Amino acid sequence: MPSSWGKIFRISTFGESHGPSVGVVIDGVPAGIPLELSEIQKDLDRRRPGQSEITTPRDEADEVRVLSGVFEDKTIGSPIALVVDNKNTISKDYDNLKDVFRPSHADYTYQEKYGFRAHVGGGRSSVRETIARVAAAGLARRILERDLGIRTVAWVDSIGEIDSNISENSYPKSREEVDVNPVRCPDKETASKMERLILDLRNEGDSVGGIIKAVVYNLPPGLGDPVYDKLDGDLAKAILSIPACKGFELGSGFSGTRLFGSNHNDEFYIDDEKRVRTRTNHSGGLQGGITNGMELVIKAAFKPTSTIKKEQKTVNSLNEETTLKARGRHDPCVLPRAVPIIEAAINLVLIDAYFYQRALQPEWYEKWVLNRETRR
Amino acid sequence: MPSSWGKIFRISTFGESHGPSVGVVIDGVPAGIPLELSEIQKDLDRRRPGQSEITTPRDEADEVRVLSGVFEDKTIGSPIALVVDNKNTISKDYDNLKDVFRPSHADYTYQEKYGFRAHVGGGRSSVRETIARVAAAGLARRILERDLGIRTVAWVDSIGEIDSNISENSYPKSREEVDVNPVRCPDKETASKMERLILDLRNEGDSVGGIIKAVVYNLPPGLGDPVYDKLDGDLAKAILSIPACKGFELGSGFSGTRLFGSNHNDEFYIDDEKRVRTRTNHSGGLQGGITNGMELVIKAAFKPTSTIKKEQKTVNSLNEETTLKARGRHDPCVLPRAVPIIEAAINLVLIDAYFYQRALQPEWYEKWVLNRETRR
Amino acid sequence: MPSSWGKIFRISTFGESHGPSVGVVIDGVPAGIPLELSEIQKDLDRRRPGQSEITTPRDEADEVRVLSGVFEDKTIGSPIALVVDNKNTISKDYDNLKDVFRPSHADYTYQEKYGFRAHVGGGRSSVRETIARVAAAGLARRILERDLGIRTVAWVDSIGEIDSNISENSYPKSREEVDVNPVRCPDKETASKMERLILDLRNEGDSVGGIIKAVVYNLPPGLGDPVYDKLDGDLAKAILSIPACKGFELGSGFSGTRLFGSNHNDEFYIDDEKRVRTRTNHSGGLQGGITNGMELVIKAAFKPTSTIKKEQKTVNSLNEETTLKARGRHDPCVLPRAVPIIEAAINLVLIDAYFYQRALQPEWYEKWVLNRETRR
Amino acid sequence: MPSSWGKIFRISTFGESHGPSVGVVIDGVPAGIPLELSEIQKDLDRRRPGQSEITTPRDEADEVRVLSGVFEDKTIGSPIALVVDNKNTISKDYDNLKDVFRPSHADYTYQEKYGFRAHVGGGRSSVRETIARVAAAGLARRILERDLGIRTVAWVDSIGEIDSNISENSYPKSREEVDVNPVRCPDKETASKMERLILDLRNEGDSVGGIIKAVVYNLPPGLGDPVYDKLDGDLAKAILSIPACKGFELGSGFSGTRLFGSNHNDEFYIDDEKRVRTRTNHSGGLQGGITNGMELVIKAAFKPTSTIKKEQKTVNSLNEETTLKARGRHDPCVLPRAVPIIEAAINLVLIDAYFYQRALQPEWYEKWVLNRETRR
Repeated sequence: MPSSWGKIFRISTFGESHGPSVGVVIDGVPAGIPLELSEIQKDLDRRRPGQSEITTPRDEADEVRVLSGVFEDKTIGSPIALVVDNKNTISKDYDNLKDVFRPSHADYTYQEKYGFRAHVGGGRSSVRETIARVAAAGLARRILERDLGIRTVAWVDSIGEIDSNISENSYPKSREEVDVNPVRCPDKETASKMERLILDLRNEGDSVGGIIKAVVYNLPPGLGDPVYDKLDGDLAKAILSIPACKGFELGSGFSGTRLFGSNHNDEFYIDDEKRVRTRTNHSGGLQGGITNGMELVIKAAFKPTSTIKKEQKTVNSLNEETTLKARGRHDPCVLPRAVPIIEAAINLVLIDAYFYQRALQPEWYEKWVLNRETRR
Repeated sequence: MPSSWGKIFRISTFGESHGPSVGVVIDGVPAGIPLELSEIQKDLDRRRPGQSEITTPRDEADEVRVLSGVFEDKTIGSPIALVVDNKNTISKDYDNLKDVFRPSHADYTYQEKYGFRAHVGGGRSSVRETIARVAAAGLARRILERDLGIRTVAWVDSIGEIDSNISENSYPKSREEVDVNPVRCPDKETASKMERLILDLRNEGDSVGGIIKAVVYNLPPGLGDPVYDKLDGDLAKAILSIPACKGFELGSGFSGTRLFGSNHNDEFYIDDEKRVRTRTNHSGGLQGGITNGMELVIKAAFKPTSTIKKEQKTVNSLNEETTLKARGRHDPCVLPRAVPIIEAAINLVLIDAYFYQRALQPEWYEKWVLNRETRR
Repeated sequence: MPSSWGKIFRISTFGESHGPSVGVVIDGVPAGIPLELSEIQKDLDRRRPGQSEITTPRDEADEVRVLSGVFEDKTIGSPIALVVDNKNTISKDYDNLKDVFRPSHADYTYQEKYGFRAHVGGGRSSVRETIARVAAAGLARRILERDLGIRTVAWVDSIGEIDSNISENSYPKSREEVDVNPVRCPDKETASKMERLILDLRNEGDSVGGIIKAVVYNLPPGLGDPVYDKLDGDLAKAILSIPACKGFELGSGFSGTRLFGSNHNDEFYIDDEKRVRTRTNHSGGLQGGITNGMELVIKAAFKPTSTIKKEQKTVNSLNEETTLKARGRHDPCVLPRAVPIIEAAINLVLIDAYFYQRALQPEWYEKWVLNRETRR
Repeated sequence: MPSSWGKIFRISTFGESHGPSVGVVIDGVPAGIPLELSEIQKDLDRRRPGQSEITTPRDEADEVRVLSGVFEDKTIGSPIALVVDNKNTISKDYDNLKDVFRPSHADYTYQEKYGFRAHVGGGRSSVRETIARVAAAGLARRILERDLGIRTVAWVDSIGEIDSNISENSYPKSREEVDVNPVRCPDKETASKMERLILDLRNEGDSVGGIIKAVVYNLPPGLGDPVYDKLDGDLAKAILSIPACKGFELGSGFSGTRLFGSNHNDEFYIDDEKRVRTRTNHSGGLQGGITNGMELVIKAAFKPTSTIKKEQKTVNSLNEETTLKARGRHDPCVLPRAVPIIEAAINLVLIDAYFYQRALQPEWYEKWVLNRETRR
């Protein structure tokens, strides 16, 4: 269903940017998992608006509450409902948008789809929906870490024309390494250039796009399923469903198309700890859509924020041409806040692949969870 | 489920490269649709091996049979089972692969996932699975054309370092314009360079990747659903589930990340026929995951074929290092045959979005199917 | 997923009897439907505890709130979240149950399933979950009435050994005819006997079961799908998922097994309005799982409430035998409050079959919704 | 989807009674399971037509073939396609039915649903679809037996007015005890009465209904899920989707509605082997929709076969009244052949609940599968 995700760890999200609340119901959570709301709150805080000077001034605490599924701080096997109320909504900012379609927003498409449109805020197309995923993924992350030691780390790799200098050898290993600056680019020098650009664009009323890169460490081999549930397909869908995302790459991505097979193939070898590894990782951690034990490496492209304060030509619902100059509060660059959203998207894909795998291949579960000794 | 696709027009595919048959069961087909097997066969012929000098010499007629769901050449509302038998399989080509993992193939990952591997052919990871999608999409395409006039056209845009010169103004309008040469690149001059490269690589036992571009014409606005069923997400998943695919872009994709919002936004205007259009199409036909009536434009990246005839280092199932030189019959470049597969993937996404839309918004159906007059 | 229902009108429910809230998220609601909360509240009021002397004294207003999906009193196509807070919970009533398994309750089975149990209230097995369905079905009912004129009416047909005298000719035609007494048995004389029995049992601390019958009027032919989505199958599942339900019959049910085909077959005829009808209705309105335009007739068996105030033998979580005498507040007979729940279950099945049918057979939609003139 | 079943062990069936083939694709089968086709064939032989004098003379070998998912007699984790060709079809038997609706068949409802009807045979409403389930369930049964020791046994409990004398103490323990006579009623004396009745009805061209009872032995506690995936709900749906089924009971069913709670509740005790058991089993093995370790006990009501050779009044597709006298070959009583179908329906429900449980509660899997010692 359009607002649901997952085969087993199944989330159903709800809420519009200017309605009473946004939230998620998670069905398919094992009983007995410690649920510390403060952990989930921490994840939400990384995506909340108003966390730094370079994000939207819409200041929301985004405090999460539990409506069900938890008893004495542990999951009980029932659906878990998590809710965040919308507090700082200023609907009158949208009065002038009632009949006008903002360029590159979903106003026109919603109008045509539903024959009807809630003109305050972006409704369901708003990035506020991602609160629901980040909250649900907070629980997923915990389970993945506890059972398998999996760790997902994303960062801002480029903004506009400003590229970072982070190579395979210098990928950040933890979210702490990423959160050292408000841009969430662990290359310090580049980060300050990016920050300056974003602040300049805010002043000009303009916006900019960029690229986020993400790595998943410590994945066991065997996760993901042929054919339509290949991990790459599920990751691509999870990421393209984030507002403003326009592209996805796994491993070598588009640049790999220019190589010959003899350069691109990832040769296997046995490492010192007797594990199967590949010398290169053009595959980005997946072969046939299934993890091979190498790091999962993906890239996501974000377009410039559609809301700008410059005057633009557009049309209205009476089929007339008109112009528009946006009010409202928006991020000139969504990338820094998209970092935790990308991580959430990835973790939601991984938890589901993991639960499906243990449903069907319990020997794998015995090997990688019950009996694993030291893992990477 | 891993081998199924779609919410309403639901396909379940089966079959391995060296098993008895590959096929598909389609549940969710309206009754009374003419089913001409010859039309579906034509689609299959575009993807079949052995169709030209630049594809694999595995020569398969890939003749499709109907097992159910059709009576007197019309669909009856029951599931439609379509089957193609595997005929030209040479399993002994794979004897030397029994215990060896081919680099950048799914051998190792299947072994780890299932604790067991059918070593002949790529099993379920083989591109032969795409027969099932192409067959099912043949029916989808017919319905989309009849009800809405939708037309999907894909072509080879680059191979290795050879880029075509096809701009927005010269996009091919029909599959006939694409099929003029075996490479399926409608830029004639580039096509012959590509053909030469592929033949050279075949002789060297090497392979190459490339990029396929696809455009969908005549889409009505309003198809696609927030949030997880955005068309871009579904398209990305459909395309990333094709073997060898490593990247996806919608509209401006990765290059759009370098622009400012004031350049990237697609301004609306009213055209001569009183339709809402955008001056540019950086959005690639979708806003908020929903069609806006502009052309849908996507790109898919394909890595070089993993099977090469040069010696490669690898490991075996005894955890030992070894070397491998492939036998077997393979495409040095999958792109030309991937063109109809990309089109199939797109049409399967669109038919499902269309059926879901008419389930929920019958007024839309009345407007765009029942009462539409002349459409683009 | 365990807490979800429906292919298109998809509900996901959450909440335990003693947690903060119960609620439902509905995904798959057309945009533009008037959503009057007072209408849904009316449905909830029919199932709420404490509504009469013969129901549980747990007095809950069960006031419903909307968290999303509605703007200016109309649905907007987004998921609709409806929430009811649990207010009158007395958890200490359950202190003595912490380690004891109540006979014929889900205590032992939850313990074994999850290895863990929230001992206050019945958790997810409590009848409070049905709030969520009744709320969601309130919206479904409205759409079914508006588009097709469908009307679902259920009533209490027997309690314990007390059978009503309601024959095919005297089936109630509206919920008003049913709500004339607190027992919800439209046979007045029988109703007062039933009421007396229930009050007696309350005094004795005992409980009793019974049978609910339901009829759906004005169904068009053609709803329901072969094979696993036959309406009878979906109805049976919807009804057996209501707490305390132990049996389901369609039409002639178990008594029909004793007849010969020559007596049981429903012969067709043409009525005065040129409609196809059957002389008898042993089929209960479905043939091949699909509506035939006759009334849908079903029966549901409810066991006696498991909670009784008499001493019972049981075991505890230490694997010891023990005895138990329940405290807490419960209905001595669930039937009167189950009437709106049965109606809700039926309407949730019908709305989904209707939406699926209009997805696949738009000609049917044109005939029965767009172009229908006078309907029964 | 209408022709699919299951969350994890997911089957998609296809085929009409007079089309080329019927079959099933099973997605969600663990790799490495021995697949002996002869075992599945044995299950199919129990339901095939023409197996005795009291069944339809349509003689079909119903030989099953594997199209995918198996390599060297083991499952490989890919979808398994099983196909049975229709051989003994006599379409001309149906010529006189082209425009006439057979009473109590799905002819009229299919016509209204699809606006179109394949008049030869019952199409998708035919009992031939059950071949697909029986084949798929053959594999499910094997896994349930191997992993958990679960055993499902069904039998004919009554035919028309003839009731067997099989009480809780004399329930058959194996299918061998059931297959001792062609009626599949393990009460010998009653069986011969039933056989005589069926043969008489065949001569008269009439038909009769009856009741099948089924018991599942050796179920561990903890299978089944709240709320909509309660085992009773899933079983009811699985069974009501079998052609001619009109009723379902779990445990005390309709007769339990007449009891008081103090009689109906199943008191717990500790047995000699220190297991938790209940003195009575009115619950039929489920509490809160989840197995409690007692035997699962269900009943299914079958109406008399609709096809009779007596003249009946009906209508045709021109909306005229007419009469009909059936030709064709049919069972005067479906019960004996429905026994293996009921078992299949149950096993398909159980395997799915089992796989879902091990996805979410691996500790349960460790306890009941990995570490169980002697089980009942």
